[in-house]
Amino acid sequence: MVESRKSLTMIFLALKFFFMIISLSEARVHNYTWEITYQFKSQDCYKKLAIAINGMTPGPVISATEGDTIIVNVINRLIMENVAIHWHGIRQIGTPWMDGTDSVTQCATLPGDTFTYQFVVDRAGTYMYHSHYGVQKETGLYGLIKVTVPPGKSEPFKYDDDRHSIVLSDWYHSSSYAEATKLTSLPFVWIGEPQSLLINGRGKYDCSNLNANVCNATNPECLPYSLTVVPGKTYRLRIGGLTSLSALSFQIEGHNMTVVEADGHYVEPFVTQNLYIYSGETYSVLVTANQASSRNYWMSTNVVGRKPATPPGLAIFNYYPNHFHKLPPTTLPPGPAWNDTRARINQSLAIKARQGFIQSPPSTADKVIVLLNTQNTFEGRRRWSLNNVSHTLPHTPYLIAQKKNWTDVFDQTPAPESYDFQNYDIYSVQGNTNTTSSSSIYRLKFNSTVDVILQNANTMNVNDSETHPWHLHGHDFWVLGYGDGKFNMSSDILEKYNLVDPIMKNTVPLHPYGWTALRFRADNPGIWLFHCHIEAHYLMGMLVLFESGSEMVGEPPQQNMGCGRTKSLMKP
Amino acid sequence: MVESRKSLTMIFLALKFFFMIISLSEARVHNYTWEITYQFKSQDCYKKLAIAINGMTPGPVISATEGDTIIVNVINRLIMENVAIHWHGIRQIGTPWMDGTDSVTQCATLPGDTFTYQFVVDRAGTYMYHSHYGVQKETGLYGLIKVTVPPGKSEPFKYDDDRHSIVLSDWYHSSSYAEATKLTSLPFVWIGEPQSLLINGRGKYDCSNLNANVCNATNPECLPYSLTVVPGKTYRLRIGGLTSLSALSFQIEGHNMTVVEADGHYVEPFVTQNLYIYSGETYSVLVTANQASSRNYWMSTNVVGRKPATPPGLAIFNYYPNHFHKLPPTTLPPGPAWNDTRARINQSLAIKARQGFIQSPPSTADKVIVLLNTQNTFEGRRRWSLNNVSHTLPHTPYLIAQKKNWTDVFDQTPAPESYDFQNYDIYSVQGNTNTTSSSSIYRLKFNSTVDVILQNANTMNVNDSETHPWHLHGHDFWVLGYGDGKFNMSSDILEKYNLVDPIMKNTVPLHPYGWTALRFRADNPGIWLFHCHIEAHYLMGMLVLFESGSEMVGEPPQQNMGCGRTKSLMKP
Repeated sequence: MVESRKSLTMIFLALKFFFMIISLSEARVHNYTWEITYQFKSQDCYKKLAIAINGMTPGPVISATEGDTIIVNVINRLIMENVAIHWHGIRQIGTPWMDGTDSVTQCATLPGDTFTYQFVVDRAGTYMYHSHYGVQKETGLYGLIKVTVPPGKSEPFKYDDDRHSIVLSDWYHSSSYAEATKLTSLPFVWIGEPQSLLINGRGKYDCSNLNANVCNATNPECLPYSLTVVPGKTYRLRIGGLTSLSALSFQIEGHNMTVVEADGHYVEPFVTQNLYIYSGETYSVLVTANQASSRNYWMSTNVVGRKPATPPGLAIFNYYPNHFHKLPPTTLPPGPAWNDTRARINQSLAIKARQGFIQSPPSTADKVIVLLNTQNTFEGRRRWSLNNVSHTLPHTPYLIAQKKNWTDVFDQTPAPESYDFQNYDIYSVQGNTNTTSSSSIYRLKFNSTVDVILQNANTMNVNDSETHPWHLHGHDFWVLGYGDGKFNMSSDILEKYNLVDPIMKNTVPLHPYGWTALRFRADNPGIWLFHCHIEAHYLMGMLVLFESGSEMVGEPPQQNMGCGRTKSLMKP
Repeated sequence: MVESRKSLTMIFLALKFFFMIISLSEARVHNYTWEITYQFKSQDCYKKLAIAINGMTPGPVISATEGDTIIVNVINRLIMENVAIHWHGIRQIGTPWMDGTDSVTQCATLPGDTFTYQFVVDRAGTYMYHSHYGVQKETGLYGLIKVTVPPGKSEPFKYDDDRHSIVLSDWYHSSSYAEATKLTSLPFVWIGEPQSLLINGRGKYDCSNLNANVCNATNPECLPYSLTVVPGKTYRLRIGGLTSLSALSFQIEGHNMTVVEADGHYVEPFVTQNLYIYSGETYSVLVTANQASSRNYWMSTNVVGRKPATPPGLAIFNYYPNHFHKLPPTTLPPGPAWNDTRARINQSLAIKARQGFIQSPPSTADKVIVLLNTQNTFEGRRRWSLNNVSHTLPHTPYLIAQKKNWTDVFDQTPAPESYDFQNYDIYSVQGNTNTTSSSSIYRLKFNSTVDVILQNANTMNVNDSETHPWHLHGHDFWVLGYGDGKFNMSSDILEKYNLVDPIMKNTVPLHPYGWTALRFRADNPGIWLFHCHIEAHYLMGMLVLFESGSEMVGEPPQQNMGCGRTKSLMKP
């Protein structure tokens, strides 16, 4: 009996090894070399400096198969500006030094230097990459990562074509330097709404009254993006939200979209005409070219959640064989009302894990962190805070400081895990808007289960609460629920949590005056950002850090160093 | 006899020690902390992002006494851009790591980091500081250094007042990023002429037709600089040329100026009404307030050497007690003709060492380097070359690479010491404008005497030769001569060199179609830049490097490292 169990074990191990070899031999390595440069671009007809990858913004789509290794040699050719690139949605399991976050996992890469990112794309799905340095992302340094299922593995939906990806972004005409200066100035100067919405890097700014050298409506660089479809076919569109500020709706005139994937997880399919998408989110939708094929249709994107001051972004859904630049005969249908929060919450609630692909969450949490999101003032400057702490990033990366035990690099006091939810009125402007600032972090027991309840509140303006897309590095989380008003500790966990079929994601919206509850397992050794994905809010302190199992992380690679205290490691 | 000589020596040594103690006890340490930030400034009424030191551009004047120690803690708060500051005219004898030149003596300082510059101002005179990183200088990161004679030491001229310093600069409305992008783009895009000339950071752009948010002629930030004088008094004005492109003339309506100092050396006084000043030069002039005191007078600066597309810069020479902002009753007198090269050469020739303060040059040179200055094409891009080599800076600093014996960081082939002067026609556009590119350097025997003959030539345009202000780091040089046309190796040394009373300087102009001859002693261990001080030309490769005695230089400080190969010195 013991013998036979032993031989069974041996056979099992042999088989396991055999399949490991097979899967190893199938996994490919994709090697890219990216030169990062400033280039004059006229993406929305208005000429401005953009940051390009090998001349392109958005950058190239990284296409790979589950299990493949991606190697990207990022050569900084920005002359005076550093760079760091984050692989958004890639959990970097076991590779925290490759997360690409300035001040957390690496020093930014200096002009002339090269950083080699290497990581495994371990799960099919749609992901993104973008700069994670200051407010550099908004200058155009971003793109999509498309990971397909390996041969022999099937997906629970069918389509004829998976070649199309759509990057949705917003576009400011002023420089990232101007924006960073405004956001950190005293008195504070708000950067305002973006000038354009871009679809795959193309928009249309109104050039009238502007010199043609500056803004030229006939510049081919700002011809609308056109997606060509063959009548009757079904298309998988992979869509990434890469805005710096705006929450968006996306729609294809006259066509339904079936949402099937979100942030790399299969969604129980649902049909919509307006896909709400927040900065940091990715979706796959299926669209069938089932409308009259004699014409083209509008694809469009609109600002929601903020009173729009930015015109819709436009593209062409082109039915073959119509000319791909033939404009649709219709006037653009209006998008959804910008302030219809209910419709947006409904979509959030509709996104559930697909039957047959449910990863059940742990039934309880080991720790609950409540994060009150507030707009505040710190030393006269406008900031965002969590539990009345507005985060200040140190200039020595957290993970290096942690590994080296440099306890004075960041505040060792634990970050606050809750706020005075009995007494805080989330519907009013506070009498005292002053906040505190700290570089403190949350330390989580390795492999423990952590709930985070994001609690929204009124901003510093009467009757105003903003939407914040929260993104977690290094992990996916279960989205346990969304609700209106103040989270009720005694009843909402029981009554409103979905522990049956919650979707896993890496980015979720926190709706105005609402709450969003997440659960994740702290099972990836490192120090990880959790932050509002709005570029300005991040710069204004709307972030926290989770440390867990960092003692298991290896020594920092040389390429991650060069700034702050890491210079003390240089032995001449 | 021997005994008495011995005791004399002892007495002499004791006295020397005694005076050394005295001078040591008198030498002061000036400690500054500078926060470097981007700020919106309206220096010429047009609002643009400038780089400020503690909120100011130009930065504060550093005032010290000969022998004092200057310590400047430079805190980079630029968010995404690095910084490096050069102390222009300070020879850094024995302190090469403090020269502040990116790619040569240090890695640029990252945002959040601090670099502490410490050096001795070892000679009274007028010097400058400015960014030495990419084309960052032109964003306003510069100022003057004023070093006075120590108590007990007298100067060979008299004045009543030494409080006034004047920074002359030019001002572009586009960003340094835009300019760097244009200058390195394919096809090449010339940045054009500056929009304004500034006097102490103030100019007046024509705001008509521009939105008042962008350009407001009534903004107090662009009120003209006003220098108040008391009738009858004599003023020493210290003037620094900090333009990025323009060569200038400077004048005070109706007043003579007596030139008494240049680049920290006493000039045999001469009187002029137009002071020609090139980027990188400093002068002291004496001006007596000896005109009708009932009114104010114009101070102005004009572009010379290039066909002006930039209006004159204006300031007010204010006679007390007239109101300091009362405009002069006259229309601005025209400056000198921009293309009167002869007048400019005449001033160059007039600048001689002051009698009684002549430091005689070595009578012969150990080595002669001839540098042909040409405009060229390299891989389709516009460049400047010396002896057909356009310089490419490595991203690991030279001096660190040299100390670490990293022979692959820069080209070890010696840089070319001459060109084919028999056959090269300096008056014509070359048939083949292609050049080569290299990071090679000149290695000079320590303490040897080196002559450099700068030879100008036609650019890539017919009938065009530009003025280049050449600046040497780490040393002053004797200005042996200027001449028209091609330097004649067999006769010009004998006939045209001034070995009697040559001035010492750190920056000299190379005039159109002319030559300029310098001599210096390679007596300061290190690797030192010698380059055209025009920001764009420097970026386009118009520089060489001199290595000498670098084996005597100590190990690189940690703060100088962090980029390129220096990361390999980090031991985790």
